[in-house]
Amino acid sequence: MTKLKNDLFLRACRRQPVNRTPVWIMRQAGRYLPEYRAVRAKYDFLTMCKTPEVAAEVTIQPIDILGVDAAILFSDILVIPEAMGMELEMHEGKGPIFFNPIRSEDDFNKLIEFDPHDKLKYVLDAVLITKKELNGRVPLIGFSGSPWTLLCYMVEGKGSKDFAVVKKLIYTQPDLAHKILEKLSNVIAEYLSAKIEFGCNAVQIFDTWGGILSQQDFLEFDLPYIQRIIQSLKKQNEPVIVFSKGVHHNLDKIIEAGADVIGLDWTMNIGDVRKYSQSKVALQGNLDPTVLFANEEKIRIEVKQILSSFGYGSGHIFNLGHGILPNVNPENAKALVRIVKEESTIFHHGDTKTQSNE
Amino acid sequence: MTKLKNDLFLRACRRQPVNRTPVWIMRQAGRYLPEYRAVRAKYDFLTMCKTPEVAAEVTIQPIDILGVDAAILFSDILVIPEAMGMELEMHEGKGPIFFNPIRSEDDFNKLIEFDPHDKLKYVLDAVLITKKELNGRVPLIGFSGSPWTLLCYMVEGKGSKDFAVVKKLIYTQPDLAHKILEKLSNVIAEYLSAKIEFGCNAVQIFDTWGGILSQQDFLEFDLPYIQRIIQSLKKQNEPVIVFSKGVHHNLDKIIEAGADVIGLDWTMNIGDVRKYSQSKVALQGNLDPTVLFANEEKIRIEVKQILSSFGYGSGHIFNLGHGILPNVNPENAKALVRIVKEESTIFHHGDTKTQSNE
Repeated sequence: MTKLKNDLFLRACRRQPVNRTPVWIMRQAGRYLPEYRAVRAKYDFLTMCKTPEVAAEVTIQPIDILGVDAAILFSDILVIPEAMGMELEMHEGKGPIFFNPIRSEDDFNKLIEFDPHDKLKYVLDAVLITKKELNGRVPLIGFSGSPWTLLCYMVEGKGSKDFAVVKKLIYTQPDLAHKILEKLSNVIAEYLSAKIEFGCNAVQIFDTWGGILSQQDFLEFDLPYIQRIIQSLKKQNEPVIVFSKGVHHNLDKIIEAGADVIGLDWTMNIGDVRKYSQSKVALQGNLDPTVLFANEEKIRIEVKQILSSFGYGSGHIFNLGHGILPNVNPENAKALVRIVKEESTIFHHGDTKTQSNE
Repeated sequence: MTKLKNDLFLRACRRQPVNRTPVWIMRQAGRYLPEYRAVRAKYDFLTMCKTPEVAAEVTIQPIDILGVDAAILFSDILVIPEAMGMELEMHEGKGPIFFNPIRSEDDFNKLIEFDPHDKLKYVLDAVLITKKELNGRVPLIGFSGSPWTLLCYMVEGKGSKDFAVVKKLIYTQPDLAHKILEKLSNVIAEYLSAKIEFGCNAVQIFDTWGGILSQQDFLEFDLPYIQRIIQSLKKQNEPVIVFSKGVHHNLDKIIEAGADVIGLDWTMNIGDVRKYSQSKVALQGNLDPTVLFANEEKIRIEVKQILSSFGYGSGHIFNLGHGILPNVNPENAKALVRIVKEESTIFHHGDTKTQSNE
């Protein structure tokens, strides 16, 4: 294994001293970058996911261009349902579509509990190539959707405004919902474990649709399955990040679920959550992604506000509170990374001393 | 004025004793009702809003069909921007579109600060007709969008996923945003005041897009303008309901803003909010609208859960945590109303005695 030259991100995940706050950007390998669009012009989205060299190329782009402290493997959360046997199509402008959504016991029985080394070998190959090409510059993050979030897509068949179909499923066939969620947590655990095995230094679980559930439904249909995945990854000892977007409740239970890092959307107060968590977990976030439409002066004000809300010491990974938007000017993304680096050193004065005394 | 035969809703708004919890449903005059669709088949949506007899007819439908404890005047929040001079089109399936969104000082200068007695006379006429036809059966609620929510539509020009344009406006031209918000709060205050003057017994401010703002942006661009409207309505002494969907933070400041009732979406814990508010305000909500896709047994479980979470005493108006969905079976909406009536009496035992001793 190549030794990491920049391990700030991993140190912050483990709340170990750092000399500045690490920063990466959700969806940093994405459409806002002209370099990404140049690759995308040659391949459709799923082909990019499935061609390890191409996935590695766009994964590394933001490391070179923005100078972020972590890479995140380019992929899509829906490769899992596809590997389970669902037919997936990506529609330009319309988003992903499953032509045969899962709505019955029969549909469920058709879902394959696959081996990621076989069915998702292309992802693991992409991990190998990316690690080689990164050559220890920064850590590599692997990701998956949460079981609940994947269930939403698999049941709805496409994006939804009110998620009526999946909600109807949990309210009228809760046993079936639990069976699908259980199968999903098994394959996700295997998948993330394989990513770590092949070289990912950390994994993130995107619980994009956790926020559409009531407090009690979140505790029944979402968090327990995330928790099961976290537990099964413990033996590999790499940081696990959980990002339940829009879930403002049950913070105590999310903190206790065993993840090393909790991602926060931009409606959360990062300082309050830090106090509430008694620094038991690291926090990732949480700039409003639309602040990148403002000028550099405003970006600096907002970055400083988040840094000082979190306060002194390690355990903060700077990020947006959701993915970077496609029409952001890349210069503003660069400015964000630079500003975090400039403004965060003063929050680690004590830690630097500790670190240099070690 | 006809004396109200059923004033449970108004009593609960004022936290006065009631013998059961009142219930109404956001968007109760809507597409899920075949009786509504029959009217809608004859007129386009804006024509329905602008024809007082038709607006009154669909306003009253759910009183007859569901037996709810309040009527809410059928209208649309976008009649205000239209009255300010913006050209509005309603597109089937696509939602509302403003062809000339507000994005500059020049656009702002074209916005008229209109007199609702003139420009929105059709709404006030609908209030008069509805009141007459209701004949005191239940109170009538009037509504408006919040200044921030109207700004979102007026700047974006249409629905949006990320609200990038309006966010860019507040981050790059905050002074212009404040000028528009100020003008909006003036016209909304006049509009709601006129609705009360013509017979509405309460008003609700729908802050549908409050939840997309960070905590500090909400305090700068949203809540102060709602507060200004509430203050200006104080002299008329009718209950004001504020529903900031998705705003889980700043609860203390929302409670202090002066509204009589706070609406809660389904991700909130109504019992916790009641404790937190020390019963200083009444609470409205907050069943997940998708529970109406379940069967009656499940609806009953969820209704009982919310009633017992709120607990004993007045100050609760049962409602969904967001508008009723278009494809809900009307039988389930009827069941909801019936179940709330059946299950809520036990939470008012003490109050009933108090009431009968008066």
